[in-house]
Amino acid sequence: MTPIKIAIIGFGKIADDQHVPSINSNPRFELVATSSRSGQGIAKTFTDWRELVRTVDGLQAVAITTPPGPRYEIARECLDAGLHCLLEKPPTAGLAQISDLACLGEARQLTVYTTWHAQHHSTVAAAAQTLAGKRVKSMQILWHEDVHKWHPGQQWIWGPGGFGVFDPGINAFSIATKIFPGGLFVESAELSVPENAQTPIAADIVFSSPQADGPLTASLDWRRTEGEEWTIALETADGTSLRLEGGGSKLMLDGKMQEDDGIGEYPDIYRHFVDLIDERRSDVDVAPFRLVADCLLIGRTSKVEAVES
Amino acid sequence: MTPIKIAIIGFGKIADDQHVPSINSNPRFELVATSSRSGQGIAKTFTDWRELVRTVDGLQAVAITTPPGPRYEIARECLDAGLHCLLEKPPTAGLAQISDLACLGEARQLTVYTTWHAQHHSTVAAAAQTLAGKRVKSMQILWHEDVHKWHPGQQWIWGPGGFGVFDPGINAFSIATKIFPGGLFVESAELSVPENAQTPIAADIVFSSPQADGPLTASLDWRRTEGEEWTIALETADGTSLRLEGGGSKLMLDGKMQEDDGIGEYPDIYRHFVDLIDERRSDVDVAPFRLVADCLLIGRTSKVEAVES
Repeated sequence: MTPIKIAIIGFGKIADDQHVPSINSNPRFELVATSSRSGQGIAKTFTDWRELVRTVDGLQAVAITTPPGPRYEIARECLDAGLHCLLEKPPTAGLAQISDLACLGEARQLTVYTTWHAQHHSTVAAAAQTLAGKRVKSMQILWHEDVHKWHPGQQWIWGPGGFGVFDPGINAFSIATKIFPGGLFVESAELSVPENAQTPIAADIVFSSPQADGPLTASLDWRRTEGEEWTIALETADGTSLRLEGGGSKLMLDGKMQEDDGIGEYPDIYRHFVDLIDERRSDVDVAPFRLVADCLLIGRTSKVEAVES
Repeated sequence: MTPIKIAIIGFGKIADDQHVPSINSNPRFELVATSSRSGQGIAKTFTDWRELVRTVDGLQAVAITTPPGPRYEIARECLDAGLHCLLEKPPTAGLAQISDLACLGEARQLTVYTTWHAQHHSTVAAAAQTLAGKRVKSMQILWHEDVHKWHPGQQWIWGPGGFGVFDPGINAFSIATKIFPGGLFVESAELSVPENAQTPIAADIVFSSPQADGPLTASLDWRRTEGEEWTIALETADGTSLRLEGGGSKLMLDGKMQEDDGIGEYPDIYRHFVDLIDERRSDVDVAPFRLVADCLLIGRTSKVEAVES
């Protein structure tokens, strides 16, 4: 079978670390080009993504790994050029844009794929399977990390559209919406925004669900220099106790620890992309993004200490 | 034909002023009950909406006109009870909830109808028809009113989830998304939030669209004690000039003024509700709500003078 010719638009750290090795290890893909404004990249490199789309012979698919801002425009033109589109998370700057891309993909019978890497641990699939059909007694999400360690010197995270602590928090939401056995809604949210920032450095969220009887909460905090953790703990009404740790890569189920024994997050993303392309289907999951929007629609904002830049 | 037995849940000013007369003037409906916590209402009145749903004989449909907060729970239980649901704007507190109700309605083959009253002027339909398929040169939305005149003493508008100036602004968005001949996306938003409030008193929004070549803007302002206006002006690339005034009720097209000559906003809402029920279809339009969420996701907030309470 001839491999699917794919290009990466927006060649940066995540492309280099994750997308390139995952594409190269999948025999159904051939990485033929990359683009980045700086000109760095591998295979045939471009500084202008439009030139890439226009000139690469036989191109069939693109992975768009730029910052979210320009993704809609890029994806739209790629769909117009007949290319299947994979989008890094969050898929676009706003919710209206990804909805429009979904319609375009359907109209042109091309794949639009919103990826949420944290959903691709085998342990997350196991958790979802365990919880299916059950009533939930409680859920506690703790997503605590040190922003200065993970985003050194990055100012965009604090500006309009920068997401703040929802940048990691949306990974938690992507797991929660995948495993939770029913609707999950924002009941209230307390957002802590530094005096010199537009986006929250911490968020305390209370969820509600018709499928749950007890407290459902999330604590997202970017101020934890010690004791970082990325855990989701759930108890069900029938006594099942489950705990995802390490951002979803470990599952503690009734006292026994399982490690992710799948092919890895990004390899699994590309495995699924092949299936979607073969079946001419899209996979547009806006649930994690919508929960962030609902936090902003419903939340109460408090100003907190300025963040060091 | 036996009329559809309908109840109003959340009997307040909007129900009394608009829903009751519109239902009463439509021979396809019979208003059989209302509920409100205070016990005010007409026909058979309840203080507990659950009792209404449980006990009213032969009930087929409900209009949910409570504040947005409890609407999801009410609509969900009404759908579980086999009732068609009409929802005042905005349909729910958050975007995840309305998406869930749409799925539930489809699963149960019941109508879920998100109403946006400002879309129901005949002049808005005429504007949409005029613009269909055209390229846009510019759009300017001016939605300027005096909050103290329209919401005297109402504190909830300033609290979390209270929407602020997006409460009237979403009417403008509901017209814009209806008439604009293509996707409409938030490019940037400047939100002015009073020092003692959680929600904006004014918002300046820049939109983008692949269907437009020039500036697309909205100015929402709740501080206009004089010169109130609710207008949307559009110019197309082929020279058409169009202006909706009075919240959509008047259309100036190429220099000629048309008045709304339809049956009125709410009567038209109920006319459409009959069609949906007859055809067992839903009409769930989240576009206006999604634009508000995108303003919050992408916007820059500035603190402004405290608002008088």
